[in-house]
Amino acid sequence: MSLADSERLEARRQQVLDAAAECFHKSGFHGASMAQIAKTAGMSPGHIYNLFQNKEDVISMIVEREQVELLAKVDAMRRADDVVQAMIDQVACGVESQLSGSDAALHMEILAEAGRNPKLAAVVRDADGQGREKLESLLGAALAQKNLRREPEEVRARVEVLMALFDGLMVRSLRNPSVDREAVAPVVARLVAALIDGDVAEKG
Amino acid sequence: MSLADSERLEARRQQVLDAAAECFHKSGFHGASMAQIAKTAGMSPGHIYNLFQNKEDVISMIVEREQVELLAKVDAMRRADDVVQAMIDQVACGVESQLSGSDAALHMEILAEAGRNPKLAAVVRDADGQGREKLESLLGAALAQKNLRREPEEVRARVEVLMALFDGLMVRSLRNPSVDREAVAPVVARLVAALIDGDVAEKG
Repeated sequence: MSLADSERLEARRQQVLDAAAECFHKSGFHGASMAQIAKTAGMSPGHIYNLFQNKEDVISMIVEREQVELLAKVDAMRRADDVVQAMIDQVACGVESQLSGSDAALHMEILAEAGRNPKLAAVVRDADGQGREKLESLLGAALAQKNLRREPEEVRARVEVLMALFDGLMVRSLRNPSVDREAVAPVVARLVAALIDGDVAEKG
Repeated sequence: MSLADSERLEARRQQVLDAAAECFHKSGFHGASMAQIAKTAGMSPGHIYNLFQNKEDVISMIVEREQVELLAKVDAMRRADDVVQAMIDQVACGVESQLSGSDAALHMEILAEAGRNPKLAAVVRDADGQGREKLESLLGAALAQKNLRREPEEVRARVEVLMALFDGLMVRSLRNPSVDREAVAPVVARLVAALIDGDVAEKG
């Protein structure tokens, strides 16, 4: 396959993922059919099966695509001269993205389906494990720059809470769509700073 | 209706809600039928319609039942002599309950469906609004006991983040079922303390 062919193929796959995200959100995982996804992506029902085996395959790729985006962001923060500042700087953008709610219902759909579908559950947990590992390494680097040393278990627990905070903001966008994003962002930034800086952690 | 009749009716309704939670978790909101819920609750398909109009009605009552439990917990903390301590004391239990994951997939199902179903979305948002109001009043009382005064907007933002934290822990139970609950609880307790106490908030 030539490079151009391979790029065209990849573009078509991305097109299907976008269409699928829209269909899953609108009709639910079980309500959405491969035919409906193909139609939304503007391709024939037969053609979609050249790109993806089935709906599980599509949803798994949606999970993996997002994971790649997250990992790239973490890598960028990891490379910053001041890792702590890079993390704090990223908060406002992360809060905005989580509270925008654009993908929140889709994520709920994926997590609900993962509760019933062991194959999808494995994909979700594997992606999460990769994200956790990267974030633990990032937080470790941030602590080292502050000359703080923490047990790996403590670093792991803080990363869990960090991830809970951002997963939770996504849930908030559904429970309270009128949430005041500008007021919430600085509160989250202070908690992230508190999670990095040992002072608060030692306080309780 | 006599008191005994009314209690019996209420017990039957609770029985249906438990059965429905099980069915929604197993088959999804759309996959579960009223007949299946009735069967799981050990009653005839006809009888269930004496208690609930339809599935939306059932799921709305599940949301409201949980809300009642949350409001009762908040009221208990509000009545404590030391509101701040009561909140901190509640954290371990709250973390344990959110991370146990027993209802997490059901909540994801409800939130995914709320993304498609405006009537259910209204129920979810209304319940959330009640919880928010109670928690804002609780946090206000906690701040007052510490002689801290905060603008209502700041109190609202902190409650949002508090709710995000606990909603997020529920999501974590699905993404990482092996999360170390005992290591996470003290980190959450310190963040909750930080959310109440102005020190950390002022720091960033």
